[in-house]
Amino acid sequence: MVNLTPNPSYSLTLRLELPNRAGTLAAVTQAIASVGGNLGQITLIERTLKISRREITVDAWSTEHADQIVEAVQVIPDVKILKVSDRTFDLHRKGKITIESRLPLTSQSDLAMAYTPGVGRICQAIAAEPEQVFSLTIKSNMVAVVTDGSAVLGLGNLGPEAALPVMEGKAMLFKEFAGVDAFPICLATQDTEEIIKAVKYISPVFGGVNLEDISAPRCFEIEKRLRQELDIPIFHDDQHGTAIVSLAALINALKLVNKSLESIRIVINGAGAAGIAIALLLKKAGAKSIWLCDSKGILSLKRNDLNPEKQAFAVDASGTLAGAMKGADVFLGVSAPGVVTPEMVKSMAKDPIVFAMANPIPEIQPELIQNDAAVIATGRSDYPNQINNVLAFPGVFRGALDCRAKTITENMYLEAAKAIASLITASDLDREHIVPSVFDSRVATAVAAAVQHAARQDGVARE
Amino acid sequence: MVNLTPNPSYSLTLRLELPNRAGTLAAVTQAIASVGGNLGQITLIERTLKISRREITVDAWSTEHADQIVEAVQVIPDVKILKVSDRTFDLHRKGKITIESRLPLTSQSDLAMAYTPGVGRICQAIAAEPEQVFSLTIKSNMVAVVTDGSAVLGLGNLGPEAALPVMEGKAMLFKEFAGVDAFPICLATQDTEEIIKAVKYISPVFGGVNLEDISAPRCFEIEKRLRQELDIPIFHDDQHGTAIVSLAALINALKLVNKSLESIRIVINGAGAAGIAIALLLKKAGAKSIWLCDSKGILSLKRNDLNPEKQAFAVDASGTLAGAMKGADVFLGVSAPGVVTPEMVKSMAKDPIVFAMANPIPEIQPELIQNDAAVIATGRSDYPNQINNVLAFPGVFRGALDCRAKTITENMYLEAAKAIASLITASDLDREHIVPSVFDSRVATAVAAAVQHAARQDGVARE
Repeated sequence: MVNLTPNPSYSLTLRLELPNRAGTLAAVTQAIASVGGNLGQITLIERTLKISRREITVDAWSTEHADQIVEAVQVIPDVKILKVSDRTFDLHRKGKITIESRLPLTSQSDLAMAYTPGVGRICQAIAAEPEQVFSLTIKSNMVAVVTDGSAVLGLGNLGPEAALPVMEGKAMLFKEFAGVDAFPICLATQDTEEIIKAVKYISPVFGGVNLEDISAPRCFEIEKRLRQELDIPIFHDDQHGTAIVSLAALINALKLVNKSLESIRIVINGAGAAGIAIALLLKKAGAKSIWLCDSKGILSLKRNDLNPEKQAFAVDASGTLAGAMKGADVFLGVSAPGVVTPEMVKSMAKDPIVFAMANPIPEIQPELIQNDAAVIATGRSDYPNQINNVLAFPGVFRGALDCRAKTITENMYLEAAKAIASLITASDLDREHIVPSVFDSRVATAVAAAVQHAARQDGVARE
Repeated sequence: MVNLTPNPSYSLTLRLELPNRAGTLAAVTQAIASVGGNLGQITLIERTLKISRREITVDAWSTEHADQIVEAVQVIPDVKILKVSDRTFDLHRKGKITIESRLPLTSQSDLAMAYTPGVGRICQAIAAEPEQVFSLTIKSNMVAVVTDGSAVLGLGNLGPEAALPVMEGKAMLFKEFAGVDAFPICLATQDTEEIIKAVKYISPVFGGVNLEDISAPRCFEIEKRLRQELDIPIFHDDQHGTAIVSLAALINALKLVNKSLESIRIVINGAGAAGIAIALLLKKAGAKSIWLCDSKGILSLKRNDLNPEKQAFAVDASGTLAGAMKGADVFLGVSAPGVVTPEMVKSMAKDPIVFAMANPIPEIQPELIQNDAAVIATGRSDYPNQINNVLAFPGVFRGALDCRAKTITENMYLEAAKAIASLITASDLDREHIVPSVFDSRVATAVAAAVQHAARQDGVARE
């Protein structure tokens, strides 16, 4: 199940010195190609009569593969490797976000207005009228990206420091895709009550909280309690971001096979944060028959090992995932690499829809079921139909912040999903195009508008 | 004791429409001058045959005064006020800092390197080798500016939301003066133990903590405990920033009067966070005789109402501030407006040094003792010798972060003070120039270098 496609996460830059004669660059590119490296940019740095220096960018599929590529170049006669750098590591060095001042500070009068004594007037205005904190500070556009590092990507409990690169990345995405300011909060505690307290304590600065990479089932309690105790939107992206985009994709996929959400049977594999949230949102959207599976099989009424969140979805059936998939219309995987076989897909109902969203390696490789499934989606950017949370969370917070929402409601999720789905017009819709690209700039705006509208309808908008 | 000098913290912009004939602008400026407004920028917005539109910036001394200025203009025949805006409020709207991405995010390959799946490699590298968090994330340049809102400027316990404008301002100053990223943390708790816990929980993201506007005596315990329990620099600016700059100014003032720190008697009025910290640092620097006073007079061995921090400075003398000042060489005030009279200054030893640092209104107005004191300093930018923390904290953190200091030591404070003092050369030194300007770009660099050097000497530098 190893992914042998070279990709930018294992990208390296080779700085080379080549003798200035015909065929040497060709020898280098040939050597790289022969071991499977994927050539990117080739830049000429300088050229003299005798030599040329070039920088070559190559994608590999693992660090071992990167080493092989370097070795393949090393053995070419007269080619000198001046420097090898790992582009991913280079890019993360010193972090990915900065704090910038929005105002000049170059004179005494700038200081007197922005800082003391002028700032005292602003403090007093907020003390007198607390709602003013939204208009006179960063709060109205600031989201805390909160984690305890207990479930970092698919990598497990790496702790708060190791989670920071992900949270910084999330902050980048918030800014890039929706102009939302976001700051990473990586908590050095994994105790549910302490996490709740910490988030409450830091909440005055934030207009919203995006929970991230917190393991189930603690994430359910943390989210629920913070919703009760704070009057700003709380959104666990691993749950609701995934659910929104999955629903959006499913709405469009169902159009292609002419089935309705109400009439189909859906199997969800993975009953953690994402699986439970997807099930809840699909139900809210009208789905009637959802079978959730965890590593032990179907969440059955007969089982007595289920936590309350799983219990709520227990059904009058039991057995393995393979059994659950027989005759099902839709498979949604938020679980583990390779747990689905082509035979299992073949056993599904006519025109099966398969969303194999495990990252980075899906439940089943799309090429294996190209002719069996009607629609296939994954979490990956190198296949069609990428189910990517970035389609949802920037716009969700943009909308919630813009109307100063007190909370986030299920309707807001539902409308966000519909907004994403609606961006694919009937003429554009096909089995390889059920969701917009993450770089489609209409997405965040459409989601924000839908979320705001739903917030007003639900009476949770303050403005 | 009201300050009747117009200043930029009460600055307004009037947008006016004037008939296009000689003398109308003069009538406006005359009217503004007649009520004491201080004219700034006058900008011509547009001019037709009949009218001109101008924007006029005016400094007032209070909101009431600003209203008077508007009224004075309102009554001029044919002059229409189109808009009045409060420049200070305008400037703070939506806050003063933003989070920016350091990298482009415009292609799938950018996303794959900065976010998933590439970021997973960075997370794993940090999990394997925790020190890598300094080189691969924002931590090494990120300071938390932490408050509980209990002592906001001189305004009292306004709470965390109302404190946010000050903390944002601080973050601006960190960036502007030393390139340090700083983020405001305004805590919704004023419980000592809870504050300590909250700061510990959020510490993974930060390379240092700047405590701010936390009332005494809780601030002492909070700082002490965080120093014990975290391995990053903890710095309470109200204490140590003030102490460093006061010492720097005093070093230079003493040169002017030919006295030594060891030989003089110093009176400090105000025994809160700043007063105690100044006393500690002066002692460390060699001062032998320091009398601290609080609102009840000299901290005397006879008093039984002293907390441990005050107790440590109790002396074998008692009485009022006036009594303490008789024969003293130096008065340092971090207390309240107008508590010192000219007579009290006259009662001091020959060539008295008076630092009246209460903000915004000093313990005594400098004009009242111009001929009695040898050197006068205040906290204000409109008098000579401004004792401003911004001379210290940006450079202190720059230095501490650059060597990845585990903690901050008293030597680091001491060397920072000496570095600030040393920027005033013998030929530049005079009674109106004992500290550099806050806009002197040498300051942060000099302080950072001195702090780094001291950190290495004290063995607290990690790099």
